[in-house]
Amino acid sequence: MDKKICIAIDAMGGENSPNKNIEGIKFFYNKNKDRDDFFFNIFGDENKVAPLLKHYKIPEKYFKIFHTSSVVSDEETPLTAVKTSKNSSMWNSVFSQTKSESDISLSAGNTGVLLVISRMILKTISGVSKPALAGLWPNNIGMNIVLDLGANIECDENNLVEFSEMGSALYKSLYPNDTPKVALLNIGSEEIKGTEIIKKTFNKLKEISKTGDFIFNGYIEGNKIPEGESNVIVTDGFTGNVALKTAEGTAKFITDNLKKSLSENIISKFSLVFSYFSLKKFKSRLDPRKFNGAIFLGLNGPVVKSHGSTDSIGFYHSIDLCYKIVKGNLMSQIKENLNHLDEN
Amino acid sequence: MDKKICIAIDAMGGENSPNKNIEGIKFFYNKNKDRDDFFFNIFGDENKVAPLLKHYKIPEKYFKIFHTSSVVSDEETPLTAVKTSKNSSMWNSVFSQTKSESDISLSAGNTGVLLVISRMILKTISGVSKPALAGLWPNNIGMNIVLDLGANIECDENNLVEFSEMGSALYKSLYPNDTPKVALLNIGSEEIKGTEIIKKTFNKLKEISKTGDFIFNGYIEGNKIPEGESNVIVTDGFTGNVALKTAEGTAKFITDNLKKSLSENIISKFSLVFSYFSLKKFKSRLDPRKFNGAIFLGLNGPVVKSHGSTDSIGFYHSIDLCYKIVKGNLMSQIKENLNHLDEN
Repeated sequence: MDKKICIAIDAMGGENSPNKNIEGIKFFYNKNKDRDDFFFNIFGDENKVAPLLKHYKIPEKYFKIFHTSSVVSDEETPLTAVKTSKNSSMWNSVFSQTKSESDISLSAGNTGVLLVISRMILKTISGVSKPALAGLWPNNIGMNIVLDLGANIECDENNLVEFSEMGSALYKSLYPNDTPKVALLNIGSEEIKGTEIIKKTFNKLKEISKTGDFIFNGYIEGNKIPEGESNVIVTDGFTGNVALKTAEGTAKFITDNLKKSLSENIISKFSLVFSYFSLKKFKSRLDPRKFNGAIFLGLNGPVVKSHGSTDSIGFYHSIDLCYKIVKGNLMSQIKENLNHLDEN
Repeated sequence: MDKKICIAIDAMGGENSPNKNIEGIKFFYNKNKDRDDFFFNIFGDENKVAPLLKHYKIPEKYFKIFHTSSVVSDEETPLTAVKTSKNSSMWNSVFSQTKSESDISLSAGNTGVLLVISRMILKTISGVSKPALAGLWPNNIGMNIVLDLGANIECDENNLVEFSEMGSALYKSLYPNDTPKVALLNIGSEEIKGTEIIKKTFNKLKEISKTGDFIFNGYIEGNKIPEGESNVIVTDGFTGNVALKTAEGTAKFITDNLKKSLSENIISKFSLVFSYFSLKKFKSRLDPRKFNGAIFLGLNGPVVKSHGSTDSIGFYHSIDLCYKIVKGNLMSQIKENLNHLDEN
């Protein structure tokens, strides 16, 4: 049998940890137990974690607990955490990747600290100038990869080109039967628009796409992201973070307004009886827990950040993402794409 | 009687012009005929415009037609338009502001050309380094002003401070009973986050807000825009344009998905009978035609750009916006705010 996919879990990060983290593992185990090709290295307070694993009836052959004595708090700054977090569940779960004990790690803890210590522990892949944070974003056809979501607030054309290659590699590892189609986020679709950096990136991507790593669709405006004609959306971390947060805010604003309208009188409340299943399906289709998990790309090992406030279902989806990333050979896909960059 | 509010209308710009433009005037006239304090200078092909004004029964004392022989096409670039557009309805409607014939002008035509010729004809107000494009954006309580939406893709701290003063002036002219509350769009609410330019702007705004032109709420993230705690959202034109377009795209994506869900089977279709009025109210509350119109601020006279693809109701809302801007004394509000800037 092949080597098992080994996922390091920071069991102590995020709201309602470690319960949601271990319940997330249970959901994954229940769905995948027939496959038997996965294993969890679980980092956290053994006294809390062990009883939960028992409670959720996860067989012992699927995990190993590594006791850690501290937790990175949400208030910790990256600066101090480098010194203080060495005994934490977060540090040790990432660190387990250096010893090849784990293929990937997952945490719902403090984002800033996770990015800084991951970079410190795993180091940047040779040839990558800046690692990037990539996220999943639903579109009309399937899913977009959007990067950078905030790891780098200022980026030059070389960074953006590397993001395109790494984003395409991630797309291929998650959707092996589909072709990555890169687009560069801009404020118009005409070639004359945008900053100098964006124009330079455009020309480079046109050239590099000839290697066949991805199809280059040119510029994309924010309103076209959901259409799905492109599936790897590249931008700097400032713009990407604003776009993502604005989309989240808009989605909430609209669904809140919808809820208000549909419950404001007795007739509309009555109608909910009939539309219940349709609305449930609508809600399920756009459930943010389904695309929970941002992927830190460009290090010698992938690290996934789950939303801190998500629940066990959201955490399960992040575990599933980790599993697919390793199964899809993300690391070798990235290295292959970066080699093409060297040739250019 | 006071001088009438005089609105220059480019009757030939946008899809379905001049019909939608003149029908928009009709809607405005029907709602406001009791007030008798407005007048339209209408620029366009007299042979097309005059019959429509007759058809829509708009009394002659409310308008004057200025015949123009050409129209700025959507394909025209700002560069060539400067030379070729002098006989156009767009150019002449903006130009009428220099002779004090009109207080404001409104066009649904080519955005790039409108911005360039407006700047050329009206000139920048002394003390303003870059004019900005401001838009309306609904929130849970009322309306946000967001600027810049794309006139300036790169901005320094002085530009962003001027945008804050001009945006606050616009807010006060539209909502005289409310206080402008400025927030700076950023990727975190902590003071340490963001680019150097944003951090410098933060410090300047903290100082300048002491003049009382606006309350300064610090940084805002994209997901908080709809909450309405701040109502003047300041950012550079690149980020603002991406945020606006992404919000538009997300809103469309969600409502499209909702429509799909609610019409996918006979039961959910049946439920629509009961939720019809609630959904209609929901749709009406978020109808983009209600906040149609971006305002070009910082020139010696305001210019409003309507969406090219809006209909007569959307165009009517832009006319209403023009009327309110002039009635609220935008120009003197801007000059007053800018004076406070000089004092600092």
